[in-house]
Amino acid sequence: MTVLILTCEEDVTADMVVVHLNASGMPVVRLDPADLTVSAGLSGEFAHGSFRGHLAAGGRLVNLAALRSVWVRRPGGAASGAVHPSPWLAEESSQALYGMLRGSGARWMNDPDAAHRARHKPWQLRLAQRCGLPVPPTLITTFPGAAREFAGRYPDLVVKPVSGAHPQDPPRAVPTSRVPPGADFSAVAHGPTLLQRRVVKRADIRLTAVGKRLLAARKAVLSPGDPEEVDVRFAASREPWRRTAVPRYVADGVRAYLREARLAYGAFDFAEDGEGTWWFLECNQSGQFGFVEVDTGQPIARSIAEWLSRPGAEQPVAAPRTRTTAC
Amino acid sequence: MTVLILTCEEDVTADMVVVHLNASGMPVVRLDPADLTVSAGLSGEFAHGSFRGHLAAGGRLVNLAALRSVWVRRPGGAASGAVHPSPWLAEESSQALYGMLRGSGARWMNDPDAAHRARHKPWQLRLAQRCGLPVPPTLITTFPGAAREFAGRYPDLVVKPVSGAHPQDPPRAVPTSRVPPGADFSAVAHGPTLLQRRVVKRADIRLTAVGKRLLAARKAVLSPGDPEEVDVRFAASREPWRRTAVPRYVADGVRAYLREARLAYGAFDFAEDGEGTWWFLECNQSGQFGFVEVDTGQPIARSIAEWLSRPGAEQPVAAPRTRTTAC
Repeated sequence: MTVLILTCEEDVTADMVVVHLNASGMPVVRLDPADLTVSAGLSGEFAHGSFRGHLAAGGRLVNLAALRSVWVRRPGGAASGAVHPSPWLAEESSQALYGMLRGSGARWMNDPDAAHRARHKPWQLRLAQRCGLPVPPTLITTFPGAAREFAGRYPDLVVKPVSGAHPQDPPRAVPTSRVPPGADFSAVAHGPTLLQRRVVKRADIRLTAVGKRLLAARKAVLSPGDPEEVDVRFAASREPWRRTAVPRYVADGVRAYLREARLAYGAFDFAEDGEGTWWFLECNQSGQFGFVEVDTGQPIARSIAEWLSRPGAEQPVAAPRTRTTAC
Repeated sequence: MTVLILTCEEDVTADMVVVHLNASGMPVVRLDPADLTVSAGLSGEFAHGSFRGHLAAGGRLVNLAALRSVWVRRPGGAASGAVHPSPWLAEESSQALYGMLRGSGARWMNDPDAAHRARHKPWQLRLAQRCGLPVPPTLITTFPGAAREFAGRYPDLVVKPVSGAHPQDPPRAVPTSRVPPGADFSAVAHGPTLLQRRVVKRADIRLTAVGKRLLAARKAVLSPGDPEEVDVRFAASREPWRRTAVPRYVADGVRAYLREARLAYGAFDFAEDGEGTWWFLECNQSGQFGFVEVDTGQPIARSIAEWLSRPGAEQPVAAPRTRTTAC
C-alpha cells in the first residue's frame, strides 16, 4: 500500500509528514498535478465491470488499487506546468486525475468535495452553531440598513472577508479589522460584508484536528482588550503558542463538526474570552500546522502520517456516542 | 414555502418549469447570481445559536427558512454583472450566497457539491460499473503505449473529451469521433485521452431521471453501423425522439447511481446495440431536457416542478430495496 501526497514541490510542510512516513517504512508517492503530461502521467482502463489504474510520478508507477490514502496538501493546478498549458488541458487533466482518484476507494485527507463545501464561511458558522460551538453574533449582508441595525445592537464589531481567505493566498488575504463607531455602511451594498461582534479575548486558540486526535494550542494576548490586537495572523508574535487542554464541549462540538463536514483534517480558530469560553471563528480544512508544531512540539505531522498510514476504509472521523443528535 | 431557481435571464428551459409551478400556485423566486449587489441582495444573521437569512430578487424578499427547494439551472457567475466586477467580489458573493443556501436546509436539484463530483467522467464510469450498468471498454491515458495496446485489443474505437463538456458550453464542445485504423497515439503523451470501444448502435437513448421518475426516449439510427453516425449531439436530426420503456436492470442501475451520487436530476446517455443492450455513455447532472420533451411530450418539466414543490427534507432518491449492495 502507498500514500499519495498531492502537493507542489516547494511545500516544506509536506516534508515534515514524509519524514514520519519514511521512518515507519510506508511507501509514499508525491505528485504535483501541475506536472501532468510532463513528468507525471496516468492511465486507467474500465472494462468488464472493473477498473485498473496507474499513476506515474517521480519515476515510479503506482497502482491506484494500492493507494491507502490521498493527502491533498498544496497541489498545483492540473497541467499548469505543461509545455503548452491551456484552460482546456487543465480541465481535461483535472477531470482525469481527480476523477480516477475519486473512484479509487482510497481514504482522503480531505475529500475534495467535502473540502470545497467546507470553505464556505456562512456554512461553517451554521454548522458550528448546530454542533454546539459558541459563535459570536455575525451578520453577512448586502443591505446597508441591516448592517446599521446590527451595529446598533452590537456596537463593538469587526469586519472580515466572507471567503475566509488565508495568508497563504496573498492576493486575497484581507485582515480582520475593527469597525469604527459611527461607520458609514452604505458601501455594503456593493459587496457582501461580514460583520462580527468582537470577542474581547485573552487568548487565541488554534485547535488542529487530525482524525479523532485533537491538538490545541493557546497564544495569550499580552494586553487583553487591546483594541489593536484583532487578527492573530497579522499581529507581531510576542507570545509563543503553548499546548492547552481541550474543554469537553469543544471536543464534542469539533468532532461532530468534522463528522458532518466529512473532513479528516481541520484547523479550527477560536477566541478565548475573559470567562474562558472558546468562540468559534473558523475552520480551515487545509490550514497550516507547521508554526504550531514548531512552537509547541505537538506531534501534528506524526499524527497526519499515522492517519494516512492506517488501513481500512473507515469514515474520516468516528462519531462520538454522545451528542450525535447535536448536529 | 418558496422554490428558488438559480439561473440566467435567457434560460427559456426554466420557463417551462415555472409555468407548472405557477399553475400549481407554488411561489417561485428566480435569481441570477450574476445580479448580486445590483438587483439582487442577501442578508443572514447568526446569533444565539440560530440563523435568520433573506434573499432579495425581482423585487421580493424571501426568508431562507421558507425555501422548500433550490433548482440550480444555468446560474451566471456570482456578481459578474456588478458595476465593478472582480475575482474578489465574485468569490465573496459566491461564498456568501452558496454558503447561506447550503445551510438553509432546502432540498437541492442538484446539491452543488454532488454536482461538482458528478461531472468527473472517470468517476461516472466507475460508479456506473458498480451500479451494474454496462460500460463499453474505456481507456483514459497519457501513455502512448497503453493507447496502442488498447487499440490492439479493441480496434474499433472512438475518442472523446475526458471532461465530458457539452454543446451548451461552446468553447469546450468537442464531438466524439472515430479513431482511424493505424492511428498514431504519440500525442496522447501531451494530454489525457479518452478512448472507448465504439458501440455499433441501433439507437441513442436519453434517459431523464427526476427524483424517482425515469423518462426514457429513443432515437433510432436509420442506418445502423453507419461509421459516420457517432455523436448524436452533432448529427443531422432525421429521426425524432420517441418514448421508450426502461429495462429493469437499467432502472435499478440508474436509481442506485443517483442515490450514490446524491443527485436528484440526471440526463443519462446510452447507446443501444444490435442486441438491445443499453451501454452507459455518460450522465450529465445538468443536461438539457427541452428537446426531448418537445419531441416526445414526456412531462419532464412538470416532473421537475412536482419534485421542487414536494415538502419534506427527504433524500433526493429513495433507495430501491433490491440491489442496494450493488453500489
